[in-house]
Amino acid sequence: MFALDPRLERDTLPVGDLPLSRLLLMNDAQYPWLILVPRRPGVSELFDLAPEEQRQLWEETTRVAETLKALCGAEKMNVATLGNVVGQLHMHVIARHGGDPAWPGPVWGRLPAQPYEAGAASVWRERLRQAFAERPGFLEE
Amino acid sequence: MFALDPRLERDTLPVGDLPLSRLLLMNDAQYPWLILVPRRPGVSELFDLAPEEQRQLWEETTRVAETLKALCGAEKMNVATLGNVVGQLHMHVIARHGGDPAWPGPVWGRLPAQPYEAGAASVWRERLRQAFAERPGFLEE
Repeated sequence: MFALDPRLERDTLPVGDLPLSRLLLMNDAQYPWLILVPRRPGVSELFDLAPEEQRQLWEETTRVAETLKALCGAEKMNVATLGNVVGQLHMHVIARHGGDPAWPGPVWGRLPAQPYEAGAASVWRERLRQAFAERPGFLEE
Repeated sequence: MFALDPRLERDTLPVGDLPLSRLLLMNDAQYPWLILVPRRPGVSELFDLAPEEQRQLWEETTRVAETLKALCGAEKMNVATLGNVVGQLHMHVIARHGGDPAWPGPVWGRLPAQPYEAGAASVWRERLRQAFAERPGFLEE
């Protein structure tokens, strides 16, 4: 049975579920940073997923990246699965701006997270749901 | 017309062409590190590609990651497109080991590259071509 890795659970706020993936907001207000976790147990690498699930994860990742870029007016989207610390397969989608505190380096391990104010996750959820309005049911609470 | 970004050209060794992407070896012997660059001009984000090309890039990326992990006995594959410095869309596929010099952090911007000895690219090309033997024509010189 799928269970979210405890470290991912600690470091993120839940946004909702896409058809395959749980969508999380990294609890770091320095960067608009979403994480997709396929709701499949025991999966660490992209190619551990079944072929159809691989395609679905890429599709969800690309749509989330495109949508987040439009929402944020980001300069560049960073899309990555690393998993050196948390083994559960998870995909980072991060909106980067020339003035952000890690630019142009990667965000991981650079600065301590700055947690959001209360209610930020529901604000993001609403913004994303509106952005996905042309795809009814793509994001479920 | 497609032209490889000059910085990517400077920092890598050519391996060959996949159906969509040019396959490059990052000229840094510290990590087995391949880069896929879709041979399409003016593309910076994943979603700048046509939908069929998006699927093709993900497919090529996943197959290269799976193959490189098997070749290297890697602990974890890192797959990422960042592009904060080089705007041309390119996908990193990096084989990570617990004892590598950046572990468990990301590899970018950590240590100066250690260039390969002469001939390394052709050795990698041959290893990859053999590994892709069940997919004739997947990797062309």
